[in-house]
Amino acid sequence: MTMQTPTRDTTASAGSDLRCRILAIAERLFRDMGYRKTTVADIASVLRMSPGNVYRFFPSKKALNEAVADRLLGDIEAELERIVAQADVPAAERLRTFVAALHRMSEQQFTANRRMHEMVEVAMAESWEVIHRHIEGVDRLLCRLVAEGAQSGEFAVEDPMVAARCVHAAIVRFCHPALIAQCADEAGPTLEQMTAFLLAGLRAA
Amino acid sequence: MTMQTPTRDTTASAGSDLRCRILAIAERLFRDMGYRKTTVADIASVLRMSPGNVYRFFPSKKALNEAVADRLLGDIEAELERIVAQADVPAAERLRTFVAALHRMSEQQFTANRRMHEMVEVAMAESWEVIHRHIEGVDRLLCRLVAEGAQSGEFAVEDPMVAARCVHAAIVRFCHPALIAQCADEAGPTLEQMTAFLLAGLRAA
Repeated sequence: MTMQTPTRDTTASAGSDLRCRILAIAERLFRDMGYRKTTVADIASVLRMSPGNVYRFFPSKKALNEAVADRLLGDIEAELERIVAQADVPAAERLRTFVAALHRMSEQQFTANRRMHEMVEVAMAESWEVIHRHIEGVDRLLCRLVAEGAQSGEFAVEDPMVAARCVHAAIVRFCHPALIAQCADEAGPTLEQMTAFLLAGLRAA
Repeated sequence: MTMQTPTRDTTASAGSDLRCRILAIAERLFRDMGYRKTTVADIASVLRMSPGNVYRFFPSKKALNEAVADRLLGDIEAELERIVAQADVPAAERLRTFVAALHRMSEQQFTANRRMHEMVEVAMAESWEVIHRHIEGVDRLLCRLVAEGAQSGEFAVEDPMVAARCVHAAIVRFCHPALIAQCADEAGPTLEQMTAFLLAGLRAA
Protein backbone atom coordinates (compact mmCIF):
# COMPACT_ATOMS: atom_id res chain seq x y z
CA MET A 1 0.00 0.00 0.00
CA THR A 2 2.84 2.37 0.86
CA MET A 3 4.28 1.51 -2.51
CA GLN A 4 1.04 1.91 -4.40
CA THR A 5 0.14 5.32 -3.01
CA PRO A 6 3.08 7.21 -4.50
CA THR A 7 2.55 5.42 -7.81
CA ARG A 8 -1.10 6.50 -7.90
CA ASP A 9 -0.11 10.02 -6.92
CA THR A 10 2.49 10.20 -9.65
CA THR A 11 0.03 8.93 -12.24
CA ALA A 12 -2.66 11.32 -11.07
CA SER A 13 -0.17 14.16 -11.11
CA ALA A 14 1.07 13.31 -14.60
CA GLY A 15 -2.54 13.01 -15.80
CA SER A 16 -3.50 16.23 -14.11
CA ASP A 17 -0.47 17.93 -15.64
CA LEU A 18 -1.38 16.74 -19.13
CA ARG A 19 -5.01 17.79 -18.58
CA CYS A 20 -3.73 21.25 -17.64
CA ARG A 21 -1.56 21.48 -20.75
CA ILE A 22 -4.46 20.45 -22.99
CA LEU A 23 -6.63 23.13 -21.37
CA ALA A 24 -3.96 25.81 -21.73
CA ILE A 25 -3.53 25.03 -25.44
CA ALA A 26 -7.31 24.87 -25.98
CA GLU A 27 -7.70 28.29 -24.36
CA ARG A 28 -4.89 29.72 -26.50
CA LEU A 29 -6.39 28.36 -29.73
CA PHE A 30 -9.93 29.49 -28.80
CA ARG A 31 -8.47 32.94 -28.15
CA ASP A 32 -6.36 33.10 -31.32
CA MET A 33 -8.48 31.22 -33.88
CA GLY A 34 -11.94 31.31 -32.31
CA TYR A 35 -13.90 28.48 -30.74
CA ARG A 36 -15.69 27.33 -33.87
CA LYS A 37 -12.59 27.14 -36.05
CA THR A 38 -10.53 25.22 -33.50
CA THR A 39 -10.68 21.42 -33.79
CA VAL A 40 -9.61 18.79 -31.29
CA ALA A 41 -7.06 17.74 -33.94
CA ASP A 42 -5.55 21.28 -33.85
CA ILE A 43 -5.14 21.05 -30.10
CA ALA A 44 -3.63 17.54 -30.30
CA SER A 45 -1.27 18.68 -33.06
CA VAL A 46 0.19 21.53 -30.96
CA LEU A 47 0.77 19.01 -28.16
CA ARG A 48 2.25 16.49 -30.62
CA MET A 49 -0.24 13.84 -29.56
CA SER A 50 -3.14 12.00 -31.17
CA PRO A 51 -6.69 13.42 -30.89
CA GLY A 52 -7.53 10.16 -29.06
CA ASN A 53 -5.22 11.27 -26.27
CA VAL A 54 -7.16 14.56 -25.91
CA TYR A 55 -10.44 12.63 -25.90
CA ARG A 56 -9.16 10.54 -22.96
CA PHE A 57 -9.40 13.70 -20.86
CA PHE A 58 -12.20 15.56 -22.63
CA PRO A 59 -14.82 13.40 -24.36
CA SER A 60 -15.93 16.27 -26.66
CA LYS A 61 -15.08 19.77 -27.79
CA LYS A 62 -18.01 20.91 -25.67
CA ALA A 63 -16.35 19.38 -22.59
CA LEU A 64 -13.17 21.28 -23.46
CA ASN A 65 -15.09 24.53 -23.81
CA GLU A 66 -16.75 23.95 -20.44
CA ALA A 67 -13.41 23.30 -18.77
CA VAL A 68 -11.85 26.43 -20.32
CA ALA A 69 -14.85 28.59 -19.33
CA ASP A 70 -14.81 27.09 -15.85
CA ARG A 71 -11.14 27.93 -15.44
CA LEU A 72 -11.53 31.53 -16.60
CA LEU A 73 -14.59 32.07 -14.39
CA GLY A 74 -12.69 30.39 -11.52
CA ASP A 75 -9.88 32.96 -11.94
CA ILE A 76 -12.46 35.76 -11.59
CA GLU A 77 -13.98 34.17 -8.48
CA ALA A 78 -10.53 33.69 -6.90
CA GLU A 79 -9.81 37.42 -7.30
CA LEU A 80 -13.25 38.33 -5.89
CA GLU A 81 -12.65 36.02 -2.92
CA ARG A 82 -9.34 37.77 -2.24
CA ILE A 83 -11.21 41.11 -2.12
CA VAL A 84 -13.95 39.81 0.20
CA ALA A 85 -11.35 38.27 2.54
CA GLN A 86 -9.85 41.70 3.40
CA ALA A 87 -11.79 41.82 6.64
CA ASP A 88 -10.09 45.02 7.85
CA VAL A 89 -11.42 47.02 4.86
CA PRO A 90 -14.94 48.54 5.31
CA ALA A 91 -17.64 46.51 3.55
CA ALA A 92 -18.70 49.44 1.34
CA GLU A 93 -15.16 49.87 0.06
CA ARG A 94 -14.80 46.13 -0.54
CA LEU A 95 -18.10 46.17 -2.45
CA ARG A 96 -16.85 49.00 -4.68
CA THR A 97 -13.62 47.09 -5.38
CA PHE A 98 -15.55 43.84 -5.90
CA VAL A 99 -17.94 45.31 -8.47
CA ALA A 100 -15.16 47.15 -10.30
CA ALA A 101 -13.03 43.99 -10.45
CA LEU A 102 -15.92 41.84 -11.68
CA HIS A 103 -16.64 44.37 -14.41
CA ARG A 104 -13.00 44.79 -15.46
CA MET A 105 -12.25 41.07 -15.57
CA SER A 106 -15.48 40.15 -17.38
CA GLU A 107 -14.72 42.79 -19.99
CA GLN A 108 -11.08 41.77 -20.41
CA GLN A 109 -11.73 38.04 -20.51
CA PHE A 110 -14.89 37.80 -22.52
CA THR A 111 -15.91 40.99 -24.31
CA ALA A 112 -12.75 42.80 -25.41
CA ASN A 113 -11.57 39.77 -27.39
CA ARG A 114 -14.17 39.01 -30.04
CA ARG A 115 -13.02 35.40 -30.31
CA MET A 116 -13.30 34.76 -26.59
CA HIS A 117 -16.76 36.30 -26.80
CA GLU A 118 -17.62 33.57 -29.33
CA MET A 119 -16.49 30.90 -26.85
CA VAL A 120 -18.63 32.48 -24.14
CA GLU A 121 -21.68 32.64 -26.38
CA VAL A 122 -21.35 28.93 -27.11
CA ALA A 123 -20.95 28.18 -23.40
CA MET A 124 -24.03 30.28 -22.59
CA ALA A 125 -26.09 28.53 -25.23
CA GLU A 126 -24.90 24.96 -24.67
CA SER A 127 -23.41 24.74 -21.17
CA TRP A 128 -25.45 26.99 -18.91
CA GLU A 129 -24.47 24.78 -15.96
CA VAL A 130 -20.98 26.35 -15.98
CA ILE A 131 -22.46 29.86 -15.99
CA HIS A 132 -24.95 28.86 -13.30
CA ARG A 133 -22.15 27.68 -10.99
CA HIS A 134 -20.37 31.01 -11.51
CA ILE A 135 -23.52 33.04 -10.75
CA GLU A 136 -24.02 31.05 -7.57
CA GLY A 137 -20.35 31.46 -6.64
CA VAL A 138 -20.51 35.24 -7.05
CA ASP A 139 -23.82 35.32 -5.11
CA ARG A 140 -22.19 33.46 -2.21
CA LEU A 141 -19.19 35.82 -2.11
CA LEU A 142 -21.46 38.88 -2.26
CA CYS A 143 -23.65 37.40 0.46
CA ARG A 144 -20.60 36.99 2.73
CA LEU A 145 -19.61 40.60 2.09
CA VAL A 146 -23.11 41.96 2.69
CA ALA A 147 -23.53 39.85 5.84
CA GLU A 148 -20.23 41.18 7.23
CA GLY A 149 -21.37 44.73 6.43
CA ALA A 150 -24.65 44.06 8.25
CA GLN A 151 -22.82 42.64 11.27
CA SER A 152 -20.52 45.66 11.49
CA GLY A 153 -23.54 47.99 11.25
CA GLU A 154 -22.50 49.46 7.87
CA PHE A 155 -25.47 47.91 6.06
CA ALA A 156 -29.06 47.56 7.19
CA VAL A 157 -30.38 44.47 5.41
CA GLU A 158 -32.77 41.80 6.63
CA ASP A 159 -31.69 38.96 4.36
CA PRO A 160 -28.06 39.19 3.15
CA MET A 161 -28.62 36.60 0.37
CA VAL A 162 -31.60 38.48 -1.07
CA ALA A 163 -29.60 41.74 -0.94
CA ALA A 164 -26.59 40.02 -2.53
CA ARG A 165 -28.70 38.67 -5.36
CA CYS A 166 -30.26 42.10 -5.92
CA VAL A 167 -26.79 43.67 -6.14
CA HIS A 168 -25.59 40.96 -8.52
CA ALA A 169 -28.68 41.23 -10.76
CA ALA A 170 -28.41 45.03 -10.71
CA ILE A 171 -24.88 44.98 -12.12
CA VAL A 172 -25.52 42.35 -14.81
CA ARG A 173 -25.10 45.08 -17.42
CA PHE A 174 -21.50 45.42 -16.25
CA CYS A 175 -20.54 41.75 -16.07
CA HIS A 176 -22.62 39.86 -18.68
CA PRO A 177 -20.38 39.64 -21.77
CA ALA A 178 -23.21 40.22 -24.27
CA LEU A 179 -24.61 43.17 -22.30
CA ILE A 180 -21.22 44.82 -21.89
CA ALA A 181 -20.97 44.77 -25.68
CA GLN A 182 -24.58 45.81 -26.33
CA CYS A 183 -24.60 48.67 -23.81
CA ALA A 184 -21.16 50.04 -24.70
CA ASP A 185 -22.67 53.09 -26.42
CA GLU A 186 -25.73 53.51 -24.18
CA ALA A 187 -26.02 56.56 -21.97
CA GLY A 188 -25.36 55.13 -18.56
CA PRO A 189 -25.34 54.81 -15.60
CA THR A 190 -21.61 54.60 -15.00
CA LEU A 191 -20.41 51.77 -12.79
CA GLU A 192 -19.57 54.31 -10.08
CA GLN A 193 -23.10 55.81 -10.17
CA MET A 194 -24.62 52.34 -10.00
CA THR A 195 -22.41 51.29 -7.08
CA ALA A 196 -23.27 54.47 -5.16
CA PHE A 197 -26.98 53.84 -5.79
CA LEU A 198 -26.72 50.21 -4.59
CA LEU A 199 -24.76 51.23 -1.49
CA ALA A 200 -27.55 53.72 -0.63
CA GLY A 201 -30.00 50.81 -0.83
CA LEU A 202 -27.82 48.59 1.36
CA ARG A 203 -27.42 51.32 3.98
CA ALA A 204 -31.15 52.12 4.10
CA ALA A 205 -33.15 50.50 6.87
CA MET B 1 -54.88 75.14 -51.90
CA THR B 2 -58.10 74.35 -50.06
CA MET B 3 -58.71 71.69 -52.67
CA GLN B 4 -55.20 70.27 -52.61
CA THR B 5 -54.93 69.86 -48.87
CA PRO B 6 -57.76 67.30 -48.51
CA THR B 7 -56.40 65.41 -51.53
CA ARG B 8 -52.92 65.18 -49.92
CA ASP B 9 -54.50 64.15 -46.67
CA THR B 10 -56.54 61.43 -48.34
CA THR B 11 -53.48 60.10 -50.15
CA ALA B 12 -51.41 60.20 -47.01
CA SER B 13 -54.16 58.47 -45.10
CA ALA B 14 -54.59 55.74 -47.71
CA GLY B 15 -50.81 55.26 -47.79
CA SER B 16 -50.63 55.25 -44.02
CA ASP B 17 -53.46 52.74 -43.90
CA LEU B 18 -51.69 50.42 -46.33
CA ARG B 19 -48.43 50.81 -44.42
CA CYS B 20 -50.31 49.77 -41.26
CA ARG B 21 -51.78 46.72 -42.95
CA ILE B 22 -48.37 45.63 -44.25
CA LEU B 23 -46.95 45.99 -40.75
CA ALA B 24 -49.80 44.03 -39.16
CA ILE B 25 -49.33 41.16 -41.62
CA ALA B 26 -45.54 41.23 -41.21
CA GLU B 27 -45.93 41.02 -37.44
CA ARG B 28 -48.37 38.12 -37.77
CA LEU B 29 -46.08 36.18 -40.09
CA PHE B 30 -42.99 36.87 -37.96
CA ARG B 31 -45.00 35.57 -34.99
CA ASP B 32 -46.38 32.48 -36.75
CA MET B 33 -43.56 31.46 -39.10
CA GLY B 34 -40.54 33.19 -37.59
CA TYR B 35 -38.60 36.17 -38.88
CA ARG B 36 -36.05 34.26 -40.93
CA LYS B 37 -38.58 32.09 -42.76
CA THR B 38 -40.87 34.99 -43.68
CA THR B 39 -40.18 36.60 -47.06
CA VAL B 40 -41.42 39.92 -48.42
CA ALA B 41 -43.22 37.83 -51.09
CA ASP B 42 -45.13 35.98 -48.31
CA ILE B 43 -46.30 39.30 -46.87
CA ALA B 44 -47.28 40.65 -50.30
CA SER B 45 -49.13 37.42 -51.08
CA VAL B 46 -51.34 37.64 -47.97
CA LEU B 47 -52.17 41.23 -48.97
CA ARG B 48 -52.77 40.17 -52.61
CA MET B 49 -50.26 42.69 -53.87
CA SER B 50 -46.88 42.53 -55.57
CA PRO B 51 -43.66 42.52 -53.49
CA GLY B 52 -42.82 45.78 -55.26
CA ASN B 53 -45.78 47.37 -53.51
CA VAL B 54 -44.39 46.33 -50.12
CA TYR B 55 -40.96 47.67 -51.07
CA ARG B 56 -42.55 51.07 -51.81
CA PHE B 57 -43.16 51.38 -48.06
CA PHE B 58 -40.32 49.28 -46.66
CA PRO B 59 -37.16 49.16 -48.77
CA SER B 60 -35.95 45.93 -47.12
CA LYS B 61 -36.96 43.12 -44.80
CA LYS B 62 -34.71 44.75 -42.23
CA ALA B 63 -36.79 47.96 -42.50
CA LEU B 64 -39.94 45.87 -41.92
CA ASN B 65 -38.40 44.23 -38.86
CA GLU B 66 -37.43 47.63 -37.47
CA ALA B 67 -40.95 48.99 -37.98
CA VAL B 68 -42.53 45.92 -36.31
CA ALA B 69 -40.11 46.10 -33.37
CA ASP B 70 -40.68 49.84 -33.08
CA ARG B 71 -44.44 49.33 -32.94
CA LEU B 72 -44.27 46.60 -30.29
CA LEU B 73 -41.85 48.63 -28.18
CA GLY B 74 -44.08 51.68 -28.71
CA ASP B 75 -47.03 49.71 -27.28
CA ILE B 76 -44.98 48.97 -24.17
CA GLU B 77 -43.97 52.63 -23.79
CA ALA B 78 -47.58 53.79 -24.21
CA GLU B 79 -48.65 51.54 -21.33
CA LEU B 80 -45.75 52.75 -19.18
CA GLU B 81 -46.66 56.37 -19.94
CA ARG B 82 -50.22 55.68 -18.82
CA ILE B 83 -48.87 54.39 -15.49
CA VAL B 84 -46.54 57.38 -14.97
CA ALA B 85 -49.38 59.81 -15.78
CA GLN B 86 -51.45 58.69 -12.75
CA ALA B 87 -50.27 61.69 -10.74
CA ASP B 88 -52.56 60.95 -7.78
CA VAL B 89 -50.89 57.58 -7.15
CA PRO B 90 -47.79 57.66 -4.88
CA ALA B 91 -44.54 57.46 -6.86
CA ALA B 92 -43.41 54.27 -5.11
CA GLU B 93 -46.60 52.50 -6.08
CA ARG B 94 -46.37 53.76 -9.65
CA LEU B 95 -42.77 52.50 -9.79
CA ARG B 96 -43.86 49.04 -8.64
CA THR B 97 -46.60 48.96 -11.29
CA PHE B 98 -44.21 50.35 -13.93
CA VAL B 99 -41.54 47.70 -13.32
CA ALA B 100 -44.07 44.87 -13.17
CA ALA B 101 -45.72 46.02 -16.42
CA LEU B 102 -42.37 46.38 -18.21
CA HIS B 103 -41.41 42.86 -17.13
CA ARG B 104 -44.76 41.31 -18.02
CA MET B 105 -45.00 42.92 -21.45
CA SER B 106 -41.38 42.21 -22.37
CA GLU B 107 -41.89 38.58 -21.44
CA GLN B 108 -45.19 38.26 -23.29
CA GLN B 109 -44.09 40.08 -26.42
CA PHE B 110 -40.56 38.84 -26.87
CA THR B 111 -39.60 35.89 -24.71
CA ALA B 112 -42.65 33.65 -24.31
CA ASN B 113 -43.01 33.28 -28.09
CA ARG B 114 -39.83 31.68 -29.41
CA ARG B 115 -40.43 33.06 -32.90
CA MET B 116 -40.85 36.63 -31.69
CA HIS B 117 -37.67 36.12 -29.72
CA GLU B 118 -35.95 35.38 -33.04
CA MET B 119 -37.22 38.68 -34.45
CA VAL B 120 -35.91 40.52 -31.39
CA GLU B 121 -32.51 38.88 -31.65
CA VAL B 122 -32.20 40.02 -35.25
CA ALA B 123 -33.29 43.54 -34.27
CA MET B 124 -30.73 43.60 -31.44
CA ALA B 125 -27.96 42.41 -33.73
CA GLU B 126 -28.79 44.50 -36.81
CA SER B 127 -30.95 47.45 -35.73
CA TRP B 128 -29.72 48.56 -32.32
CA GLU B 129 -31.00 52.07 -33.09
CA VAL B 130 -34.60 50.85 -32.47
CA ILE B 131 -33.59 49.32 -29.14
CA HIS B 132 -31.63 52.44 -28.26
CA ARG B 133 -34.68 54.67 -28.79
CA HIS B 134 -36.72 52.36 -26.55
CA ILE B 135 -34.09 52.41 -23.78
CA GLU B 136 -34.03 56.21 -23.94
CA GLY B 137 -37.84 56.35 -23.94
CA VAL B 138 -38.07 54.17 -20.82
CA ASP B 139 -35.29 56.21 -19.17
CA ARG B 140 -37.25 59.43 -19.80
CA LEU B 141 -40.47 57.99 -18.36
CA LEU B 142 -38.64 56.64 -15.30
CA CYS B 143 -36.91 60.00 -14.87
CA ARG B 144 -40.28 61.78 -14.83
CA LEU B 145 -41.56 59.32 -12.22
CA VAL B 146 -38.47 59.63 -10.03
CA ALA B 147 -38.47 63.44 -10.32
CA GLU B 148 -42.12 63.58 -9.25
CA GLY B 149 -41.30 61.29 -6.30
CA ALA B 150 -38.44 63.60 -5.37
CA GLN B 151 -40.68 66.68 -5.58
CA SER B 152 -43.32 65.10 -3.36
CA GLY B 153 -40.64 64.14 -0.82
CA GLU B 154 -41.10 60.38 -1.32
CA PHE B 155 -37.67 59.93 -2.85
CA ALA B 156 -34.38 61.54 -1.89
CA VAL B 157 -32.33 61.67 -5.07
CA GLU B 158 -29.92 64.32 -6.32
CA ASP B 159 -30.13 63.61 -10.03
CA PRO B 160 -33.42 62.01 -11.16
CA MET B 161 -31.98 60.94 -14.54
CA VAL B 162 -29.01 59.16 -12.94
CA ALA B 163 -31.38 57.43 -10.49
CA ALA B 164 -33.75 56.51 -13.34
CA ARG B 165 -30.92 54.99 -15.36
CA CYS B 166 -29.73 53.04 -12.31
CA VAL B 167 -33.23 51.63 -11.79
CA HIS B 168 -33.56 50.74 -15.48
CA ALA B 169 -30.13 49.07 -15.62
CA ALA B 170 -30.87 47.21 -12.37
CA ILE B 171 -33.99 45.58 -13.80
CA VAL B 172 -32.46 44.62 -17.16
CA ARG B 173 -32.67 40.98 -16.08
CA PHE B 174 -36.44 41.38 -16.02
CA CYS B 175 -36.93 43.22 -19.32
CA HIS B 176 -34.14 42.14 -21.69
CA PRO B 177 -35.62 39.29 -23.76
CA ALA B 178 -32.43 37.21 -23.82
CA LEU B 179 -31.87 37.63 -20.08
CA ILE B 180 -35.44 36.77 -19.18
CA ALA B 181 -34.88 33.49 -21.01
CA GLN B 182 -31.37 32.87 -19.63
CA CYS B 183 -32.24 33.65 -16.02
CA ALA B 184 -35.57 31.79 -15.95
CA ASP B 185 -34.10 29.01 -13.79
CA GLU B 186 -31.68 31.12 -11.77
CA ALA B 187 -32.24 31.56 -8.05
CA GLY B 188 -33.42 35.12 -7.82
CA PRO B 189 -34.05 37.85 -6.79
CA THR B 190 -37.76 38.00 -7.51
CA LEU B 191 -39.04 41.13 -9.20
CA GLU B 192 -40.74 42.12 -5.93
CA GLN B 193 -37.50 41.75 -3.95
CA MET B 194 -35.63 43.80 -6.54
CA THR B 195 -38.25 46.55 -6.58
CA ALA B 196 -38.21 46.76 -2.78
CA PHE B 197 -34.42 47.00 -2.84
CA LEU B 198 -34.47 49.77 -5.45
CA LEU B 199 -37.16 51.70 -3.57
CA ALA B 200 -34.96 51.58 -0.45
CA GLY B 201 -32.18 53.14 -2.53
CA LEU B 202 -34.47 55.84 -3.90
CA ARG B 203 -35.76 56.74 -0.44
CA ALA B 204 -32.27 56.90 1.10
CA ALA B 205 -30.67 60.33 1.36
